[in-house]
Amino acid sequence: MPTCRKVYDVTEFLPEHPGGQKIILQYAGRDATDAYESIHPPGTLEQALPPEKYLGELGETAKRALNRALENRKKTADEERIEKAQANKPSITRILNLHDLERVARQVMSYKALAYYSSAADDEITHAENTLAFRRFFFHPRVLRAVGRCDPTTTILGYRTSIPVFVSGAALAKLGHPLGEANITRGAHATGIIQMISHNASLSSQQIAVARGSPNQVLFYQLYKHKNDVVAEQRVREVEAQGYKAIFLTVDAVVAGNRERDNRALFEIEDMERTAADNSATQLEMDADAIAVAESGGTAGALLARDDLDLTWQTTIPWLRRITKLPIVLKGIQCVEDAVIAAETGLDGIVLSNHGGVALPPIEVLYKLRKQRPDVFSRLEVYIDGGIRRGTDVLKALCLGARAVGMGRPFLYAQSAYGEEGVARAVHILEREIITGMRLLGTATVADLVPEMYLQMTPFISPSGGRVK
Amino acid sequence: MPTCRKVYDVTEFLPEHPGGQKIILQYAGRDATDAYESIHPPGTLEQALPPEKYLGELGETAKRALNRALENRKKTADEERIEKAQANKPSITRILNLHDLERVARQVMSYKALAYYSSAADDEITHAENTLAFRRFFFHPRVLRAVGRCDPTTTILGYRTSIPVFVSGAALAKLGHPLGEANITRGAHATGIIQMISHNASLSSQQIAVARGSPNQVLFYQLYKHKNDVVAEQRVREVEAQGYKAIFLTVDAVVAGNRERDNRALFEIEDMERTAADNSATQLEMDADAIAVAESGGTAGALLARDDLDLTWQTTIPWLRRITKLPIVLKGIQCVEDAVIAAETGLDGIVLSNHGGVALPPIEVLYKLRKQRPDVFSRLEVYIDGGIRRGTDVLKALCLGARAVGMGRPFLYAQSAYGEEGVARAVHILEREIITGMRLLGTATVADLVPEMYLQMTPFISPSGGRVK
Amino acid sequence: MPTCRKVYDVTEFLPEHPGGQKIILQYAGRDATDAYESIHPPGTLEQALPPEKYLGELGETAKRALNRALENRKKTADEERIEKAQANKPSITRILNLHDLERVARQVMSYKALAYYSSAADDEITHAENTLAFRRFFFHPRVLRAVGRCDPTTTILGYRTSIPVFVSGAALAKLGHPLGEANITRGAHATGIIQMISHNASLSSQQIAVARGSPNQVLFYQLYKHKNDVVAEQRVREVEAQGYKAIFLTVDAVVAGNRERDNRALFEIEDMERTAADNSATQLEMDADAIAVAESGGTAGALLARDDLDLTWQTTIPWLRRITKLPIVLKGIQCVEDAVIAAETGLDGIVLSNHGGVALPPIEVLYKLRKQRPDVFSRLEVYIDGGIRRGTDVLKALCLGARAVGMGRPFLYAQSAYGEEGVARAVHILEREIITGMRLLGTATVADLVPEMYLQMTPFISPSGGRVK
Amino acid sequence: MPTCRKVYDVTEFLPEHPGGQKIILQYAGRDATDAYESIHPPGTLEQALPPEKYLGELGETAKRALNRALENRKKTADEERIEKAQANKPSITRILNLHDLERVARQVMSYKALAYYSSAADDEITHAENTLAFRRFFFHPRVLRAVGRCDPTTTILGYRTSIPVFVSGAALAKLGHPLGEANITRGAHATGIIQMISHNASLSSQQIAVARGSPNQVLFYQLYKHKNDVVAEQRVREVEAQGYKAIFLTVDAVVAGNRERDNRALFEIEDMERTAADNSATQLEMDADAIAVAESGGTAGALLARDDLDLTWQTTIPWLRRITKLPIVLKGIQCVEDAVIAAETGLDGIVLSNHGGVALPPIEVLYKLRKQRPDVFSRLEVYIDGGIRRGTDVLKALCLGARAVGMGRPFLYAQSAYGEEGVARAVHILEREIITGMRLLGTATVADLVPEMYLQMTPFISPSGGRVK
Repeated sequence: MPTCRKVYDVTEFLPEHPGGQKIILQYAGRDATDAYESIHPPGTLEQALPPEKYLGELGETAKRALNRALENRKKTADEERIEKAQANKPSITRILNLHDLERVARQVMSYKALAYYSSAADDEITHAENTLAFRRFFFHPRVLRAVGRCDPTTTILGYRTSIPVFVSGAALAKLGHPLGEANITRGAHATGIIQMISHNASLSSQQIAVARGSPNQVLFYQLYKHKNDVVAEQRVREVEAQGYKAIFLTVDAVVAGNRERDNRALFEIEDMERTAADNSATQLEMDADAIAVAESGGTAGALLARDDLDLTWQTTIPWLRRITKLPIVLKGIQCVEDAVIAAETGLDGIVLSNHGGVALPPIEVLYKLRKQRPDVFSRLEVYIDGGIRRGTDVLKALCLGARAVGMGRPFLYAQSAYGEEGVARAVHILEREIITGMRLLGTATVADLVPEMYLQMTPFISPSGGRVK
Repeated sequence: MPTCRKVYDVTEFLPEHPGGQKIILQYAGRDATDAYESIHPPGTLEQALPPEKYLGELGETAKRALNRALENRKKTADEERIEKAQANKPSITRILNLHDLERVARQVMSYKALAYYSSAADDEITHAENTLAFRRFFFHPRVLRAVGRCDPTTTILGYRTSIPVFVSGAALAKLGHPLGEANITRGAHATGIIQMISHNASLSSQQIAVARGSPNQVLFYQLYKHKNDVVAEQRVREVEAQGYKAIFLTVDAVVAGNRERDNRALFEIEDMERTAADNSATQLEMDADAIAVAESGGTAGALLARDDLDLTWQTTIPWLRRITKLPIVLKGIQCVEDAVIAAETGLDGIVLSNHGGVALPPIEVLYKLRKQRPDVFSRLEVYIDGGIRRGTDVLKALCLGARAVGMGRPFLYAQSAYGEEGVARAVHILEREIITGMRLLGTATVADLVPEMYLQMTPFISPSGGRVK
Repeated sequence: MPTCRKVYDVTEFLPEHPGGQKIILQYAGRDATDAYESIHPPGTLEQALPPEKYLGELGETAKRALNRALENRKKTADEERIEKAQANKPSITRILNLHDLERVARQVMSYKALAYYSSAADDEITHAENTLAFRRFFFHPRVLRAVGRCDPTTTILGYRTSIPVFVSGAALAKLGHPLGEANITRGAHATGIIQMISHNASLSSQQIAVARGSPNQVLFYQLYKHKNDVVAEQRVREVEAQGYKAIFLTVDAVVAGNRERDNRALFEIEDMERTAADNSATQLEMDADAIAVAESGGTAGALLARDDLDLTWQTTIPWLRRITKLPIVLKGIQCVEDAVIAAETGLDGIVLSNHGGVALPPIEVLYKLRKQRPDVFSRLEVYIDGGIRRGTDVLKALCLGARAVGMGRPFLYAQSAYGEEGVARAVHILEREIITGMRLLGTATVADLVPEMYLQMTPFISPSGGRVK
Repeated sequence: MPTCRKVYDVTEFLPEHPGGQKIILQYAGRDATDAYESIHPPGTLEQALPPEKYLGELGETAKRALNRALENRKKTADEERIEKAQANKPSITRILNLHDLERVARQVMSYKALAYYSSAADDEITHAENTLAFRRFFFHPRVLRAVGRCDPTTTILGYRTSIPVFVSGAALAKLGHPLGEANITRGAHATGIIQMISHNASLSSQQIAVARGSPNQVLFYQLYKHKNDVVAEQRVREVEAQGYKAIFLTVDAVVAGNRERDNRALFEIEDMERTAADNSATQLEMDADAIAVAESGGTAGALLARDDLDLTWQTTIPWLRRITKLPIVLKGIQCVEDAVIAAETGLDGIVLSNHGGVALPPIEVLYKLRKQRPDVFSRLEVYIDGGIRRGTDVLKALCLGARAVGMGRPFLYAQSAYGEEGVARAVHILEREIITGMRLLGTATVADLVPEMYLQMTPFISPSGGRVK
């Protein structure tokens, strides 16, 4: 229950709202706290509005009336479904792999959260391709090598990690669990891995920094550069001051993509509710919400509307290098040519990923990079992100030269299903799978993983091409 | 309701009817207006019969009796299904992609219309291959390029279009919506794209020309050359006079193909009706209709029976060049060799497509052409047609050198589902998808789309080959 | 109803029965006429037994008792199913392709017949591969070529045929229709194609010769060489005398293969009957029959037990050349090397096929032969057999150099479904598909079909490999 | 019913139990005989505990009480299912191939046994890949070669076998049938093939040696080397003394893999039981059992906990060579490089297999070895293991140079379904399939099987990559 509800004048802000005007007008004169908090990080409103627009707190009588109304509010069909699922959730000791975690999360998450977490670009082919691409690589395990002492630790940008995996910056963790990204921060601390924080997290970078298990816990920051350089610079300086250890500049999300499932989810919620059928005010608000968000490009669209669409090698990189001493990593490289430019530009790392679009799966780009330009791997660290679900996937990437892999959704699902404990479970599962895999490959250290000895790729084929939807 | 019902003597015409004699005899002495109008463009009868065969209008009493009978007629099962579907149709604001439009159209169209729109050659493999072929091409997006201002406009034969897409000439739009092709004409005007009109449209080229939003709206004409050169020449001169800006000569539909679904649909209607079970006269007519059409090769068969089967490079092209100054485009080129001949013959453009048959998917032919004869692209404009459903499909074709792509069925479905508004929705969806795609690729203009930078093909594989029906 | 039932002493023959002893003993002292006739060609018994073993006809009283028993016999579940299916069979005018014919046949055939017709080697992969292999070949159609007059006729071993298709020798047609192979003979005559007769036909070669529509109708003979040269020679001389025009020597069925479905069908009939449940004598006989046939290798096993397992290039071919002046074709060549030997040995033709086993699909062998040894095509005629169901399949084979294609099962299904009329329908369907295909390819004669212009193969892939049963 | 129940003090042993402490504590003060016997070979306890820990036998009264309790115990749902399945099992004469045997076994086995037998590594992709890999190889059969006398016999390490197949060492046969591995020993003797015994058999190597049909029956021993060299040496000397003829050293199971199905089965049993719902003591024990085993890595995990993780070419091979004169074969080679080292090290044979992990299918490794290093085949014997289910699979391996193939699971299923008789049936099925296949290939002896003549591989593709689970 919110303890403190505030009143603002947003009249002048209306045309600037990234999510469109309608959704705000719908709540005019009424309480918008819950709807607002679940998708905006703290401080969003404060940054967007000048101080004089804050008109004061809601009176005590109004607050009480509001809280009473909220308590009496009839639960939606989705809320009832979730309550039942939470009650029947399996014990965490039964979770044996990341697919299990996802399965549980899908049962206990709201439909809206699920839509955001699982949405992918057009026809959802890219995402499936990413996962399937890993299956086109086969190991050549070696035998009769001592693997009694097997060590999966490594470093990322010089910082130690218990396994060659980091948390990739996925947004809106609070949609899945009330504690949001802090679950991941604590789970990462408990298990010794590094978390990259999304600019679009549902907690502020400050809140997450505070949630750290110790002051030495390493966090990276994923920057979606604001179109206004001054605002962007302020952001970078803030996170540096908060103790973040690297900037991952997002270079592939220049536009909201085409996340239809995200939009469609809202329509489907409407229909579910309509059949559950009570034309209460709550219901009407939700309809309006659905339409508004759909027009502005879904939840993901709302997040990106203020991003800079004119990032360039010539202006953006020097600007960023000038304002920070932190290592800079480009997140979203999708071809060999850009990887080479990144190396020549003196960046510290690149994340091969294909967030949005129908680009080549990252593991394939990694393979091409290894074949065509092996020199790049000695000039910067290369990571990949997308579709990784198994310890063997991690090992395949490392065999091809990746320093580590990023994983986003699996941790969102893990915290949605079991909070902090779920995140730790995910890391332990991966650790077990990685050690087992290394031993079967005949390698006792991460450094021993090399493509000549361990990996064979099949000719490049698009397997999902065979299925008509 | 038809306002004016005429009486003709068709005795001598019987053996010449492309759809066979039986279907006409079935209606002897009875009213055939509705059945006739839904698949013949206006003027068909007037052209086919000498004036003296027109015996006059139906008497007023007879007309009234007829209309009464029509009103009292029991609705068929299919008509009832459609009525229900129309009532439950989702709001157009919920349509997020072309698949949604098709889904709605399939619900609100008659079974017969659907059969025509969705029929394809033997075993329907070709059509699936066309769509799947696009999935074998993957992008290599570039990052850190300014895409804030992104312009998807281009020209086709010198005429400007808002996106690199034109409406391909698909026939019989009235089967799907009472206003037929005029819906597309108005939607194209509203959104700034070019429409190519099929010779087999359910409205005459004149009616469509009149439906234009302004005299400057650009229309192209798809010619199925009549076997009689004089008739064919008259047709070309007419459309030139009506203001059409180019002739797309169909070179691949020399015969009706083997559209089994088209035929089979009629059998299935029979069976559906029979189980709905009333042995009324209406029913019997439908049976006869089914058999007659089946024997003459389905609806598509009926349309093509008078086409010239002896088109040649040596005779047809010079003839056409002689009688018109309009740009000439060949529609239906299916291999590199013919594309080269077209360029050497001085034609203005070619449409790579595989209407009927089990030929290589057009995107594959385009790829081969680009690899083997890149010079062709500078000598004429190359378009492709078939299987395109996404903005990313359009971009793939453009990366390989296509000037624009033709889309037929998607617009037929769009107008069947929502009339003119559906057509405009389809264009806006494509525009959004194309702009999003261009930004993700790192391109701000259509001219920037080049294969070296953006596209990688997988080895050629026939994915649907893996499934047994 | 059999009119004349005979009594034999088979005691000494027991150990030589290709189908095993048990099945005969089961019928000892009882009537075996029906069981015998449905799978043995006439004269089998007369050839196998010395005349003195014929003990005379059954007495009139016994005959009457037997007939009465047969009439009162309760119908089996399968017979009742068939009766119903025959009553509901669609009109033949609704049959639009060969798949339709097969579908009808599958409904009206006995379970046992169906098992024989559709059985293939281990796991039935080979058969599916054969069909799918055709989908890996795509046409490169040419446009603007005169195809008004389109002629699909050709010759096979110098004999004219209306389409480049011959009936391949499939056995046991009487299992599917009481008139058996004679249906095919008459249908072939009516439509102008050539029939190859199987040594294992359910009618004798003499009976089929007599069934010809005219003395000039061309028949070929498929020889399964008997292990005894004298018996084999007698067979060749007989068919030559009966007017057969060529000998197709089967070289790939040296053993019964591993037709599990054939065996399994018998078990399943048992189970169906058992649940239908009456433990009558009929039932018991059937059980015994099932076991006996299973042990001897199914119906197909029974047929092949006397074949020569020691055919060689060195002995068999010279022997056959010596005893006949007819053209000799080898049926069952499965690799390029043997095709070359056949050409060098001076044979008149080869049929590429893979009857039994998991060999490369014939269309792939044809493709390799064309690539590696194009000279072979000018030294003998090359046919392929297996998996062909469409006019486009026929055209693909011809583009690669085949003179004609053999089709077996489709004609068995056609005659099972509609007798002679079904066979004619099958040929007309193929003729229409072939003409349509030729026109779409831009070819007016069979001689114009050449690989350089029309066909592209995809890399060789085993598509069904992707599915686990 | 156990006849003699013993009491032990296991307090000090608790921390060393490979399956963890919990499971033992659960049974403290209670009878653990049945649970113990079904997964430990005899003597395990005696080897693990010093003699003074044996406290004596259970008193007579206690024994009687225990037996009475066992008799009155309510059957579990799974036991009832099995009882029904045993009653309805088909006659063995109906078993036509190995898939049939597996199908029957799956019906009559306990859920736990099934989980062990069918478990494979992550996502079960590897196992499917192994089977599917065989489908990418096609034969080029030769015709007109004498195959009347066809001989499938060969030798393995100099010992004659009726077919080129040996029983691969699969563990825990008693889970499937009370007589366990002895069924296989007797079936192998009856049919003339060689059995390799797993170190983890549910009978001791001595018991199996005693079960031989004659003193000359050849048995091989699969060694999982104990981490303590002294213990391991003792094991080798024992089996040599017991008459085993070769040592197959397992080199690829250095860790328990990641057998999730094995673990999951236990959870599912719990749930099945819980719904069957009686909270008896039996039930509680089972729950505890499930958790304990899960934590220790499932049944397979329990078996491997004492294995040596530090096997090396430098230490292990010389050690083994020193302590035994028996031929030494490495089981679990997974790439060409290690095969070459094995040959250079002077070993007697290698088994290509991929027990655990996502390595290349063995038939693919064999193919690469044949292509890249054909010399290896003349220096040692090469076998493959994994995914073989058909005679044609065996022939494919032999064509590529394998001396023989190992089969494990099929024999486990065979003995589970029909005991010794099932094993013999499996061999006869394979023999029939191999002879049939050889004849169809045109080969009369195993030595004639060569890749140049008989086999073509398709390009390497991962077919299951196309399916999302």
